[in-house]
Amino acid sequence: MGEFELIRRYFLPLAGRQESGSLILGPGDDCAIQRIPAGRDLVFSVDALVEGVHFPRNYRPDYLGWRALAAAASDLAAMGADPECFTLALTLPAVDEQWLEDFSMGLRKASEAFGLELAGGDTTSGPLTLSLQVHGTVEQGAGIRRSGARPGDLIAVSGTLGDAGAALDYLSEPAPSADMLAVLERYHHPWPRLDLAGAIRQYATAAVDISDGLLADLGHILSASGVGARIESARMPLSPALVRLKGEKALDCALRSGDDYELCLCFSRENWERAPESLKRQLTVIGFVDAEPGLYLDGVDCSLEAVPAGFDHFRSEL
Amino acid sequence: MGEFELIRRYFLPLAGRQESGSLILGPGDDCAIQRIPAGRDLVFSVDALVEGVHFPRNYRPDYLGWRALAAAASDLAAMGADPECFTLALTLPAVDEQWLEDFSMGLRKASEAFGLELAGGDTTSGPLTLSLQVHGTVEQGAGIRRSGARPGDLIAVSGTLGDAGAALDYLSEPAPSADMLAVLERYHHPWPRLDLAGAIRQYATAAVDISDGLLADLGHILSASGVGARIESARMPLSPALVRLKGEKALDCALRSGDDYELCLCFSRENWERAPESLKRQLTVIGFVDAEPGLYLDGVDCSLEAVPAGFDHFRSEL
Repeated sequence: MGEFELIRRYFLPLAGRQESGSLILGPGDDCAIQRIPAGRDLVFSVDALVEGVHFPRNYRPDYLGWRALAAAASDLAAMGADPECFTLALTLPAVDEQWLEDFSMGLRKASEAFGLELAGGDTTSGPLTLSLQVHGTVEQGAGIRRSGARPGDLIAVSGTLGDAGAALDYLSEPAPSADMLAVLERYHHPWPRLDLAGAIRQYATAAVDISDGLLADLGHILSASGVGARIESARMPLSPALVRLKGEKALDCALRSGDDYELCLCFSRENWERAPESLKRQLTVIGFVDAEPGLYLDGVDCSLEAVPAGFDHFRSEL
Repeated sequence: MGEFELIRRYFLPLAGRQESGSLILGPGDDCAIQRIPAGRDLVFSVDALVEGVHFPRNYRPDYLGWRALAAAASDLAAMGADPECFTLALTLPAVDEQWLEDFSMGLRKASEAFGLELAGGDTTSGPLTLSLQVHGTVEQGAGIRRSGARPGDLIAVSGTLGDAGAALDYLSEPAPSADMLAVLERYHHPWPRLDLAGAIRQYATAAVDISDGLLADLGHILSASGVGARIESARMPLSPALVRLKGEKALDCALRSGDDYELCLCFSRENWERAPESLKRQLTVIGFVDAEPGLYLDGVDCSLEAVPAGFDHFRSEL
């Protein structure tokens, strides 16, 4: 199969699916063209995923398609942006039709679930690597940055943390228990919190998505905002499955493992008080922002842990 | 060196360089933010480059930085778009500081030459692969597409063709002649024809950049426009260096080899007549668009050659 046939068969069905979208020219030309509505800004982010680094070798291609787009879309959620479209740069060792069919199916499900239309891309021969760039929009000036946290702000996280990290221990489990299946599902099918984007841009002062672990990602907010934080381990939202599987180590998963794609958010007390219950119900307050630098967990400074250490083990965004 | 330090040292200097740009939030947050001026559309394209496929193994990193951005920017030129910014997804086998310094220097030179500011990116551990997405803008509705060619239009190309393709034979030449150096320079430092973008969107009916070879890329215009073409080999613009190096095979380089990043353009006769001499001087008319399908070179149909054959040897854009 030639490359153009490959694209026509597996990827063009992902284009032109969002009728209300801002894309006015999709795949098939030198460039795509997007018309940003008046009064709105373009918000965009690129994520690279490498086999053996960001996902296991011989990982199920339908899961890969979903996870890759979910991970990228999570950055839009963290800005409070509404999703629009995405591009895909895919390098593949060989044309494996079954792999392509499964991969594109997972990608299509995610594309539909997240409201992200395929705008264009590039497919080449090479080691299995993906690079996805997602485009969203926000009202001008409404994008939530990492730098907006102020002393006294409350710090909250969405959902529960640590499940996806714990799942790494069970990827090869031949007969997984119900609890294992629950955390594996969090790893294989993360849901970026795009549902919270509208409320976030209305009430949050700062936001980051949790892709490298809570301590590391909260650390990004603190350094960008020039503040410190005090958080409490007893407040950390842990799923029952995680607690049953990991016992005392559940907290460690919640603090230090990534891949959950939940959000870490800051709110002024005033905003928190007037935020709707529908938002608060999905969040857990874990501490507050402090003028004094440092990331204190139960009174102990763990700032150094918040600094990602090695090139090999972290994906880091410019 | 950690990844954040790597980014700070080598890539942040490429951000924030274009004072008049539309980028309002650059690298360092979950997403970048671009404000598209009122009345303009966003134009964007992604290119993936893999070591050993799109550039030689152990290729000079400063050349790689330039070529990668030049190749991507060429797609903006082909739409008649004005350059704004770009993202870079880079996977590297290891942190080699000399390599990074040289690569980022080549990338910075191209960034300044083409007016493309770094907006964000992702750096990860993995096989040497790059993915660059370039962003430009055009007045709403002014982007030039592949599908606008009409029977009777003149077909023209910019510059001279085939030099970069011929250079592949001399990449390992220990003592290259002046002619070899001339074509090697075209390969190592292509100049996307952004200088023509303004005139193109005013006068051209269709455009494509020549990255896979004239026959293949003109073929894209013909199929997108539902037309045929008749071109003449005697009209093909060949550099003196190419003719001296390749003799009778020079034409073959011009027709079938890529990497020159010149443009292939169509013009209605009316537009051609009123186009300024400053534009025409940089173009060579090589034939005309025909209602009858087929790509006829000196009267012989070579449409089949215009269809890229294999997955391994072509980069193809979605």
